[in-house]
Amino acid sequence: MLQIKPSVSRIEQKILKFSEFIDPKEKGFTRISFSEQYREATAYLAHLMSKEARLSVRRDAAGNLIGRREGKSRDAPAIMVGSHLDTVRGGGRFDGVVGVVAGLEIATVLEEMRINLNHPLEVVAFLAEEPSPFGISTIGSRAMIGNLDQETLNSLADENGRTLEQAIRYMGGDPGNIDLARRSPDELLAFLELHIEQGPCLEAQNIELGIVTGIVSITRGTIDIIGKNDHAGTTPMKSRTDALAAAAEIVLSLEKVCRKTPDIVGTVGQMEVSPNAANVVPGMELRGLDDQRIAETIRQFENDLTRIQTTRRVSINHKIWLSSPGVILDKDLVDLAAATCKKLGMSCRLLPSGAGHDAGHLAQIAPAGMIFVPSKDGRSHCPEEWTDFEHIGCGVELLGSLIDAIDKGNINANR
Amino acid sequence: MLQIKPSVSRIEQKILKFSEFIDPKEKGFTRISFSEQYREATAYLAHLMSKEARLSVRRDAAGNLIGRREGKSRDAPAIMVGSHLDTVRGGGRFDGVVGVVAGLEIATVLEEMRINLNHPLEVVAFLAEEPSPFGISTIGSRAMIGNLDQETLNSLADENGRTLEQAIRYMGGDPGNIDLARRSPDELLAFLELHIEQGPCLEAQNIELGIVTGIVSITRGTIDIIGKNDHAGTTPMKSRTDALAAAAEIVLSLEKVCRKTPDIVGTVGQMEVSPNAANVVPGMELRGLDDQRIAETIRQFENDLTRIQTTRRVSINHKIWLSSPGVILDKDLVDLAAATCKKLGMSCRLLPSGAGHDAGHLAQIAPAGMIFVPSKDGRSHCPEEWTDFEHIGCGVELLGSLIDAIDKGNINANR
Repeated sequence: MLQIKPSVSRIEQKILKFSEFIDPKEKGFTRISFSEQYREATAYLAHLMSKEARLSVRRDAAGNLIGRREGKSRDAPAIMVGSHLDTVRGGGRFDGVVGVVAGLEIATVLEEMRINLNHPLEVVAFLAEEPSPFGISTIGSRAMIGNLDQETLNSLADENGRTLEQAIRYMGGDPGNIDLARRSPDELLAFLELHIEQGPCLEAQNIELGIVTGIVSITRGTIDIIGKNDHAGTTPMKSRTDALAAAAEIVLSLEKVCRKTPDIVGTVGQMEVSPNAANVVPGMELRGLDDQRIAETIRQFENDLTRIQTTRRVSINHKIWLSSPGVILDKDLVDLAAATCKKLGMSCRLLPSGAGHDAGHLAQIAPAGMIFVPSKDGRSHCPEEWTDFEHIGCGVELLGSLIDAIDKGNINANR
Repeated sequence: MLQIKPSVSRIEQKILKFSEFIDPKEKGFTRISFSEQYREATAYLAHLMSKEARLSVRRDAAGNLIGRREGKSRDAPAIMVGSHLDTVRGGGRFDGVVGVVAGLEIATVLEEMRINLNHPLEVVAFLAEEPSPFGISTIGSRAMIGNLDQETLNSLADENGRTLEQAIRYMGGDPGNIDLARRSPDELLAFLELHIEQGPCLEAQNIELGIVTGIVSITRGTIDIIGKNDHAGTTPMKSRTDALAAAAEIVLSLEKVCRKTPDIVGTVGQMEVSPNAANVVPGMELRGLDDQRIAETIRQFENDLTRIQTTRRVSINHKIWLSSPGVILDKDLVDLAAATCKKLGMSCRLLPSGAGHDAGHLAQIAPAGMIFVPSKDGRSHCPEEWTDFEHIGCGVELLGSLIDAIDKGNINANR
């Protein structure tokens, strides 16, 4: 097994350097996709790819930045590794950047050690993974799987009227030939992404690495509760038909049914209350990887809705729909990652990703794997977001070993 | 005992006639104070007072419409009876109008029967009892107790920039001399108001009349709950600090403590939810007549707030203040009304008023009494608002007998 020993100090220095490309007018570490700072950070990454890691750098038609190190076998499918450089508004320094710097570090170490893999290695910074000013996210990886067409590019605009087509051009892409960004399954042997966990599980259990089994599906729903607009002073408690009190029960019901079921999370994230609580619309969502558990959770929740409607005499109309299907990541990659962790003497656990990632799209065209590093206090998308650099070093080391194993054909990735 | 036999059909015809003075652009029966329709309805009332009931009609400086029937003893204090003609937006046909038509009917019957009371009788339609375009309510009765000054008239304006001073002038008042609207306790022997219950208690118990013991105090509060803006997908249920779930518990806690205590009602009527439920501000109110019960209810609710703050690890800041003090109505008038009901063979019960009324102000300058007639399904402030005309007839009959008893000195009203 090839052991790629990353330089933790170099990783730290790079991550902190990228955190300087931020919008001074915003709080936290803000580098919204398609902003000036985003473009500068991407240009700086291109510079590092070229000068430090000696990669051949290109922007694909969608504006994804790709640095390539050829393999011994020139026409072999590539192993791709990477993540994204954009942040949410008021975000942190690690989300996305960690995976990009990890890929860069591996390529740099390979160059320093003068190791040539059999397969080409591609380090990628996907365009606009986070929710963008154009209302969609994971723009670059969508394009890479052929799921972004010309019409969408021209029809989506930000609040200043700039179209996505113009914004991709600003980022150095070639939106008129967006189809060229599409990669076929033949071209990719595997995709790997290192990312922060964005949750508290690894840190709480003092585990160094998480091996992601899949990206949860997102089920969303709205619940419309219509009560009676009775007088707040003249209506006795027992005569009330209070939609807000019914909504309160519903919020606690969703919490209760989700607490009962492992690996399911449910959130009422918004609530609109109309005058005097006669009409309340809470928006709910449910995330999990196991379809059967999700179905059972929805069943229990709907039973509660029926009960609340009866006992509180309110009218409840609800819609629940699958908003984003789940993605099961490559089982062989998961097993290989777990076995490799053991060999490297690192602790790990399998866990689902509660958030969406570019890897979810890439899984459609290549065996995809994700490695999580612990998030301090589980925080992310905020300035307090933090991951110890030693943990990132562990993640990069695991990534390097996985790349080596995949490169050596230790996993039959093209099933 | 003088029995004033009201004409139920005449009452019905008048109430329905007033329901024609409505804004055609609004839903339900809308006659907002200071509107064209409101002025026309008031002019029509002046006409009825003068032509049918032979009252001498005047507008006081505040724009209250007062019809007066002199008594045998010209300088004796007057017995005042009345209510208001304005409605809320989308309101009904009975709220306010019932009490005005009741006073008119009594004056009309006295005229028909050529009965002269010892004391003068004044029938009043107070100006703008409901929440007005100027942000305040009970404008006429405020002025009558000397609680509305020149500065307020000039500083309050509606959304079109019209000042309250201009609006009162439009209604025929003399706002420059607003102090002249003030009545001294020497001038008034008692004030009586017939009103719809606006709640379901009388109808539910099949009782004809309610004798109002007081107008509840209103305690308001805001509760600021700050949670943690964790990721909805990556944060396990047990690691959450969900302000909205805490708010849900608080809504149900207020309901629970108020259900336990008789004659206390509590409402969470608004709720503002900030992004991702990290910050929720529910607004609460509590109404009741018994200060000790209110204090005990607040104590229990605050205990719950402390418990919820601890168990859910959210930060809760709350403010609770007395928004509107309660008014205990004249005990002797209550007893007299109950005894008179018995003599007349009508069923009645004592109950507090959960809503505010002009009588609450008048109680500061004269012994004040209120009689409630049943509201169908407890509805009010909506087009479905309904009271059977027979019940209104009963109320008017009771009012007449009470006026007679007060007039004969059967109650020592000036204590």
